[in-house]
Amino acid sequence: MREREAPALREEFPHHSPITTRWADNDAFGHINNVQYYAFFDTAVTRWLVERGFLHVTEGEVICFVAETGCRYFRPLAFPERVEVGMRVARLGTSSIRYELAVFGQGNDAAAQGHFTHVTVSRATGRPVPMPQALREAAAGLMIQK
Amino acid sequence: MREREAPALREEFPHHSPITTRWADNDAFGHINNVQYYAFFDTAVTRWLVERGFLHVTEGEVICFVAETGCRYFRPLAFPERVEVGMRVARLGTSSIRYELAVFGQGNDAAAQGHFTHVTVSRATGRPVPMPQALREAAAGLMIQK
Amino acid sequence: MREREAPALREEFPHHSPITTRWADNDAFGHINNVQYYAFFDTAVTRWLVERGFLHVTEGEVICFVAETGCRYFRPLAFPERVEVGMRVARLGTSSIRYELAVFGQGNDAAAQGHFTHVTVSRATGRPVPMPQALREAAAGLMIQK
Amino acid sequence: MREREAPALREEFPHHSPITTRWADNDAFGHINNVQYYAFFDTAVTRWLVERGFLHVTEGEVICFVAETGCRYFRPLAFPERVEVGMRVARLGTSSIRYELAVFGQGNDAAAQGHFTHVTVSRATGRPVPMPQALREAAAGLMIQK
Repeated sequence: MREREAPALREEFPHHSPITTRWADNDAFGHINNVQYYAFFDTAVTRWLVERGFLHVTEGEVICFVAETGCRYFRPLAFPERVEVGMRVARLGTSSIRYELAVFGQGNDAAAQGHFTHVTVSRATGRPVPMPQALREAAAGLMIQK
Repeated sequence: MREREAPALREEFPHHSPITTRWADNDAFGHINNVQYYAFFDTAVTRWLVERGFLHVTEGEVICFVAETGCRYFRPLAFPERVEVGMRVARLGTSSIRYELAVFGQGNDAAAQGHFTHVTVSRATGRPVPMPQALREAAAGLMIQK
Repeated sequence: MREREAPALREEFPHHSPITTRWADNDAFGHINNVQYYAFFDTAVTRWLVERGFLHVTEGEVICFVAETGCRYFRPLAFPERVEVGMRVARLGTSSIRYELAVFGQGNDAAAQGHFTHVTVSRATGRPVPMPQALREAAAGLMIQK
Repeated sequence: MREREAPALREEFPHHSPITTRWADNDAFGHINNVQYYAFFDTAVTRWLVERGFLHVTEGEVICFVAETGCRYFRPLAFPERVEVGMRVARLGTSSIRYELAVFGQGNDAAAQGHFTHVTVSRATGRPVPMPQALREAAAGLMIQK
């Protein structure tokens, strides 16, 4: 394996989203299962979009499809720990947003971190459409200097 | 169907447990799927047990098996709503606890409510054993006069 | 607790639905988590409805809301066991169907069994509407003499 | 975004694992949620390990931790479609296996594909240990010439 980057720190993310873990998140080895981290990413991104009015579950012409995701796991977490998902925007295209996310338990360094790429599509056709300007501006506000 | 009882109220539960909903909790009809309410029940009960030291994920002679659960659904909830699970104890046996639980979104009346029966078993054999006295006393503290 | 009924047998169900278990179904005690049995029920019922054309994910005037569910657990199952869900109809109302379901692993007696009540509602209003006649007839075909 | 590779084909994978989708896999947009593809990957890999005796849920000195996962999504799938996960080994280290996986619905080209890296660790300490020789040999049997 290639040399692994160090875990990200809390302050490297401009937005944080709290998540309560669930008993069923723990797998048979007593740790939160690798799959659930993607539910944390998905929830942090979608909560931000819905709460700011950029995405509506059943209405609106533009919805978001997921094009690519990934995660690296540094140390295990376990229910009933509460976690926080740090979120920033790494890249903005015409119809795509690449988010970078990290899951924090206790402490300041990420337990896991990854990325999540959304494409804005027409709800009717499922084809990519340029993202609305208000979303572009809000997403740009989550970009950070690295 | 038999006549349905009215939804329970927040103040009928001595203990409340906050849960953050997740994007994937919503099913294709845009509401939190019926299955997830059991994850809420399971999480509220197990969090209470773990945080008070009555249950340990990987250690301890006594663990809890689920014998029976049930839920009635009064009105839909949807992500990104935050919910709260009210919890009380309805019946205490030698090795069983019947919890009653209700899920609250906005408002004071339950969106759904149900029950969850745990049996205390030996981790080694999976056979029922009398529950520890400290657990019995804590559970008795969650019983209410109806 | 009241005296518990014996587990149902495979042949007591006119319809069976195969389900592959998943690693994440196992909880920290190494068994399929109580919550997942409801995903099995939900999947068996909805698969039957969708495959026969009675329910469409995104179209059609009538959809189904879940009004009540319940499950009793007799013995643990674990990934990677494959399971089968037996399904029958216990009661048919104007706009409701009460299904009875049982989960089978190895062997002929149920590992768990329960019920699942659907109400047919208008997709537009979410209010109960009489179920279509074709659904009523198909559901009647799943009733059994007990 | 960088130019995207074409989806993999069924015959590029020496092992295939069938998965039944579940109603709750569909999210509010009526497609299988991005998160669930990782449950498919996790299940295919772990089923292979458990069924061949390389991993035991509650016993054995060596277990596997997940170090890194990723997925690219080409076209949506939806319940009640049955899917198949193709699996091959891309890299074998002293204590790590990088699997490549693809999810197939109808048709011969992948709906989504990704990777999943396991590290063999001591159950007692959680620290990496060299993988057992029998596992190494079986994993080598899943490597393909590209």
